Amino acid sequence: MGRLKGKAVLAQSGGPTAVINASAYGVISTAMKHPDTFEGLYGALNGILGVLREELYDLGKEDPAELELLKCSPSSALGSCRHKLKGLDTDRADYERILEVFKAHNIRYFFYIGGNDSMDTAAKLGELARRIDYEMIIVGVPKTIDNDLAYTDHCPGYGSVAKFNATSVMEAGRDTEAMYTHDTTTVHEVMGRNAGWIAAATGLARRTPEDAPHLILLPEVPFETEKFVADVRQSLKDYKRCFVACGEGIKTPEGKYIAEAGGAFAADSFGHTQLGGAGDAVRAIIESQIGVKCRTNRAGTAQRNAMHFASKTDAHEAEMVGAAAVEAALTGVSGKMITLERTGTGSGYRCTTGLVELQKAANGEKPVPPEFINRQRNGVTDAFRDYAFPLIAGEAPVQIGSDGLPVYARLAKHMIPKKTGRQYDV
Amino acid sequence: MGRLKGKAVLAQSGGPTAVINASAYGVISTAMKHPDTFEGLYGALNGILGVLREELYDLGKEDPAELELLKCSPSSALGSCRHKLKGLDTDRADYERILEVFKAHNIRYFFYIGGNDSMDTAAKLGELARRIDYEMIIVGVPKTIDNDLAYTDHCPGYGSVAKFNATSVMEAGRDTEAMYTHDTTTVHEVMGRNAGWIAAATGLARRTPEDAPHLILLPEVPFETEKFVADVRQSLKDYKRCFVACGEGIKTPEGKYIAEAGGAFAADSFGHTQLGGAGDAVRAIIESQIGVKCRTNRAGTAQRNAMHFASKTDAHEAEMVGAAAVEAALTGVSGKMITLERTGTGSGYRCTTGLVELQKAANGEKPVPPEFINRQRNGVTDAFRDYAFPLIAGEAPVQIGSDGLPVYARLAKHMIPKKTGRQYDV
Repeated sequence: MGRLKGKAVLAQSGGPTAVINASAYGVISTAMKHPDTFEGLYGALNGILGVLREELYDLGKEDPAELELLKCSPSSALGSCRHKLKGLDTDRADYERILEVFKAHNIRYFFYIGGNDSMDTAAKLGELARRIDYEMIIVGVPKTIDNDLAYTDHCPGYGSVAKFNATSVMEAGRDTEAMYTHDTTTVHEVMGRNAGWIAAATGLARRTPEDAPHLILLPEVPFETEKFVADVRQSLKDYKRCFVACGEGIKTPEGKYIAEAGGAFAADSFGHTQLGGAGDAVRAIIESQIGVKCRTNRAGTAQRNAMHFASKTDAHEAEMVGAAAVEAALTGVSGKMITLERTGTGSGYRCTTGLVELQKAANGEKPVPPEFINRQRNGVTDAFRDYAFPLIAGEAPVQIGSDGLPVYARLAKHMIPKKTGRQYDV
Repeated sequence: MGRLKGKAVLAQSGGPTAVINASAYGVISTAMKHPDTFEGLYGALNGILGVLREELYDLGKEDPAELELLKCSPSSALGSCRHKLKGLDTDRADYERILEVFKAHNIRYFFYIGGNDSMDTAAKLGELARRIDYEMIIVGVPKTIDNDLAYTDHCPGYGSVAKFNATSVMEAGRDTEAMYTHDTTTVHEVMGRNAGWIAAATGLARRTPEDAPHLILLPEVPFETEKFVADVRQSLKDYKRCFVACGEGIKTPEGKYIAEAGGAFAADSFGHTQLGGAGDAVRAIIESQIGVKCRTNRAGTAQRNAMHFASKTDAHEAEMVGAAAVEAALTGVSGKMITLERTGTGSGYRCTTGLVELQKAANGEKPVPPEFINRQRNGVTDAFRDYAFPLIAGEAPVQIGSDGLPVYARLAKHMIPKKTGRQYDV
């Protein structure tokens, strides 16, 4: 029996990262070496939405130089979305529509770069394809700045957001150090909905005790106002200032987010609460209970796209998982997500790829484990530093234009004529 | 009559920048070449507070390698403050105290790196010294990310905050581009109390119309809700998304800040209103009046210390103004601030230093001029781009440690024994 032949679709889903396009490049460059198997390579416009709407474009028609530039371009150049598909029973029409589109174009390979929601979609899609006996190969490529996917040592995207935030905290920490007679405290809010991996990474900036951050607030540790205020006071006593790194998803001991976002869109379509504002809430506590001035920083979406100071290791591994997905597919592997496996520690750090069932990857969540959180529960341990430092090593090369600013890829997206003959509203 | 001999004091004041330490290095390295004139070079701990409190330290005892590192270290390594001295009549005791400290240590040179408040202090100090016939030389070194000092083409610190924010907007703009089906609009708040120079700089990221930022809100342009909402709607129509760069100091047509900070510290000791939150206010307008989801980014103090992606031109010029201050002092110049003078345009850009009266520099404020603001008053002109691009050219070198993070200077600050015999409370 020969290798399955047909077209391949590549899609990106969920929040962008600095290196998700490097993963796309890994998929594209590897797939293009096998034109006998991949009779066409399509991008889906805005993730699974592009498949549902039959909005596909021909990656083979892109300028090769622009594709090459994907290696050092942040955000999701293929277009992303936050459209979550639920169970096969609830959203069966959606899954059937996807397979209708795949069949119409003879799409036999689906590479999906995303987090656990995407892996869930990919797993269910594979299940339905088997049930209706449509032969296809589905491989997941891990991506999330949150680093909370289980079954992989770490996630592409994390090393870069970690490097940028640690650097930013180091730099803003020097501001508080210089200005302590006036701006005595600073709260620096970072992303991380349920897991504190990004907040923890800011701890890498603390080479000596007086360095920022003096306190780290992790979602894994219930926020207790009284203890926090005592911790800030201690820092003011020790260093005359206090720099707090704060995960956006910190919660009260009762499990409520410290700051629910105001405005009309408190919940996104994944059913997650849209966060932002934890830093301002913590600032209000400091100003009212301690009576010192406090500033709040919140880089927001800039942090997860900070390619201009991304981790070289992360960019390399992101490309590696993309390539590994195609190589796995070529050997007939399906229904799996590529993982990263670490061997060696410190300067002996090495990383290879492995495989895990999509359904397992979809359901696993990996919070920061207790051994990475210090005894006072307001900082990180050396074990965490040993884990994280290799992931931020090196600076990914970036192309700088003659105007002094980075040059990032934008795809032409030559659209493929529709074949299903019907519109599908989502 | 020979050259005035004595000790010199160097102080930094106000908000830090990525390159204010490069100016300090320019002063220090140049002064150290003239030990016959400068019989000692002291740093003041936290700006003018350090002089008032007689908290001085010997810069001559610092590790030369650490001093060298100042060239690529952000924030104010000497320590800064926001202690504003008022008129000679109101705060005469403070000015007299400063001269008391200077006399006690035979300090005959004062180099003050700061913005217009600092130049005002320096000017008044010079006036009192003349009145009481204490011979000394006072030279100001310009510094402000806000770029609103008059009589200088631009200010050291501006080019770097401009480069970082333009890059960040470019990167976060790609996030909105990828996520427009969900996160349709983004408001990216940048610093700039009364002048929109920093907000304007984000316009450098817009190489093509679809690039971010689609709208720029400048403090120079009164914020009119109706027009703004129409502008956002137009951008949504044209690009399916809208990325807004928002100066923190935007005001209503009645002259009120869009967002007065909450909390207990709405005004700082300079009498300025402490800003922050303009972005959130604009976001609320978008969500309530247009009904699309909006995100807010606010890098806060991280933006003005982003040495990891600072402008090489800015770092070079910052060092140049520091050196020029000492060279001017050596020729007997006093009561002046160093300025930057531009010759040539585009790739022919060159920059030299000049001089202006401290008192003039203190009182001048330079908003973004009308010819730099587009006709729709929501963006910048090519004239602005021609002005600003040379200022962000090149990437300042940074030392990266084996841990993958920048290495920044921290001074040892060997304190000088006090000589005035009295404590002075400020």
